[in-house]
Amino acid sequence: MTTEEALRVVPRTAGAGELFQLLRDGQPRTRAELAAVTGQARSTIAARIDLLMASGLVAPAGATTSTGGRPPATFAFNPDARVVLAVDLGATHAHLAVTDLASTVLAELEAPISIADGPDVILGWVAQTGEELVRSSGRSLEDLVSVGVGLPGPVEHSTGRPINPPIMPAWDDVDVPGVLSTRLGASVLVDNDVNIMALGEHRTEWPGVSDLLFVKVATGIGAGIISDGALRRGAQGAAGDIGHVAVSDRSEVPCRCGNLGCLEAIASGQAVAQQLAAGGLEASGSNDVVALVRSGDLAASRAVRQAGRDIGTVLAGCVSLLNPSMIVVGGVVASSGEHLIAGIREVVYRRSLPLATQHLRIVASRTGNRAGVLGASAMAVDHVLSPEAIDALIG
Amino acid sequence: MTTEEALRVVPRTAGAGELFQLLRDGQPRTRAELAAVTGQARSTIAARIDLLMASGLVAPAGATTSTGGRPPATFAFNPDARVVLAVDLGATHAHLAVTDLASTVLAELEAPISIADGPDVILGWVAQTGEELVRSSGRSLEDLVSVGVGLPGPVEHSTGRPINPPIMPAWDDVDVPGVLSTRLGASVLVDNDVNIMALGEHRTEWPGVSDLLFVKVATGIGAGIISDGALRRGAQGAAGDIGHVAVSDRSEVPCRCGNLGCLEAIASGQAVAQQLAAGGLEASGSNDVVALVRSGDLAASRAVRQAGRDIGTVLAGCVSLLNPSMIVVGGVVASSGEHLIAGIREVVYRRSLPLATQHLRIVASRTGNRAGVLGASAMAVDHVLSPEAIDALIG
Repeated sequence: MTTEEALRVVPRTAGAGELFQLLRDGQPRTRAELAAVTGQARSTIAARIDLLMASGLVAPAGATTSTGGRPPATFAFNPDARVVLAVDLGATHAHLAVTDLASTVLAELEAPISIADGPDVILGWVAQTGEELVRSSGRSLEDLVSVGVGLPGPVEHSTGRPINPPIMPAWDDVDVPGVLSTRLGASVLVDNDVNIMALGEHRTEWPGVSDLLFVKVATGIGAGIISDGALRRGAQGAAGDIGHVAVSDRSEVPCRCGNLGCLEAIASGQAVAQQLAAGGLEASGSNDVVALVRSGDLAASRAVRQAGRDIGTVLAGCVSLLNPSMIVVGGVVASSGEHLIAGIREVVYRRSLPLATQHLRIVASRTGNRAGVLGASAMAVDHVLSPEAIDALIG
Repeated sequence: MTTEEALRVVPRTAGAGELFQLLRDGQPRTRAELAAVTGQARSTIAARIDLLMASGLVAPAGATTSTGGRPPATFAFNPDARVVLAVDLGATHAHLAVTDLASTVLAELEAPISIADGPDVILGWVAQTGEELVRSSGRSLEDLVSVGVGLPGPVEHSTGRPINPPIMPAWDDVDVPGVLSTRLGASVLVDNDVNIMALGEHRTEWPGVSDLLFVKVATGIGAGIISDGALRRGAQGAAGDIGHVAVSDRSEVPCRCGNLGCLEAIASGQAVAQQLAAGGLEASGSNDVVALVRSGDLAASRAVRQAGRDIGTVLAGCVSLLNPSMIVVGGVVASSGEHLIAGIREVVYRRSLPLATQHLRIVASRTGNRAGVLGASAMAVDHVLSPEAIDALIG
């Protein structure tokens, strides 16, 4: 939730949970300032601040300057009060982080995994490794209030269960929150990996942008939609699945989904690697493509630029439909330099209406490979710091 | 706002404006029921109900059944307390309606206009005709609290000003709310015509559907996006502008926007009319196409079905991106029967991933040519019945 939204939803009669939203921006405030913003009585504010202080979520923030007499006390959000575990699981790679309640990373770890090993093996490993990571950050499991998890497939966000996930069929309908919350003793939120990347990039780098499209270009291609300031997941949690949109004039290329000419079959890191391998280069995946481009290989640079154009064809339609003010391009292939984004820009600016592109920026991800864990952390923190959760905690 | 949302946003300490949201569903409730739902004291509820009764927005709703003694009094939203004016302006056609606060139409009228006559002529006509329509519904301008307006072009919703509207250049950056509120003495909300159609269809027919895409197929083609229960307008209010997305394999057809192969240049009512006229049929616009199809003309039916397929190509991408559970097809061409929707279904179900189409319904608009005024009414009503507006009214 942005500060603007927080201010908007605080009615004059709001309880401690809503009052706390005002403080989430980290700025120290006096009781008088809080009374002025909310229109609540000083005595009411004082009582609620006492409750929040007792929970540890709010702490004294030192004295403010004053023209004389005893300086008024200020209070601020204390993000150190608890920690969350952020888990970003890919097909072959895991990234775990322990963060405070402001999503500042306290400890992190990356490891190779095989998601195909199934939920028993992988979630067991996540629970054990997560617990060790919490301890290595100097905290205990008692401090862990929530876990955010990103998975490489469609997830029903309300239940945290994967739905027919193509690259991890053994995970279908598995109660991921149930398994992890039993092991770790904390609430567990689960979402698609591209959604949490979009959330991580948005919260960390572009919190003031209300309409943003995050595009991940890696082994596959997917998008996460921020609209009116919030992540939009669609009816089944499948929003943003642009990898299987048909690209014009290329309908002969078969895709693993069974259709022809899908974007992912033409422009993903995997597809570009296959194209380069067919041309005699040593490339079996996205990382090889990136290495070839970085080494100055012309064929690889050209192929990545063309992939950018094909992605741009699909993104031009997304721009017309959603009118974002920013497209952020992330994923391994985006780290190969400017070729990918140059190709995307070329087509999007040519194919979209002037009104939609007038203020449109197309930029590379700034959070890089941390986008996922930052988003998983933000999702978990939002859950435990919501007005309802705070009221339940201190009520 | 759906009832579910209303319930969710009412904190235990909510004021009269928030309490009122509970009553917007029209169901009569007792003070005791309201106290139970909100957790507020009976005395607090009683005081707030008194304020709402004094405003006329809430009225006694008769006695409830009781097992004995004096039956408890019930209260309900009184949508008759005020009226709003709903204005749906097209390129050549205007539809005005006076509705109550539940968007029930009390009086309406349709008239030919030419939007190109410019804002002075058209807004002058709207103000005068709107005032007469209010009187003809048996109410006075004192009862008019808000005006909702739909315009056939992009609108910056926050200011109500059109932005570079292609078919109405003289309206660029005109302060539509300023002009109309001076004349009519009420707040004025303005939006794009397809957005208000989406809102009207959603509120009236599918209020429980959280993710819905409304597609208008008429002289032009556009869409309105309902996501997580609310209309999404994008960064510049240009969201849903799918008429200029490129259709695969048809890149030779020029569009008035300057690009080639735009959906609107291939599949709009205007484009189909041109194709039929080139084949020797008498067709100069959408209405002629509809008349030909209804008369059983085979070439016209075929052309409309192919238009449906081309629209389906673009909608398949929209389905992958947004994962709606429903697509509603409206506009004049949709009234020609099943051919258009059959073509759309054919391609969408073939081109989208099973997860996204598993629960997807594609249906014809039920509100027909009233979609616009119903949406304009809903937009105006939402504005005047928001918690903040109610608190300001009775505070």
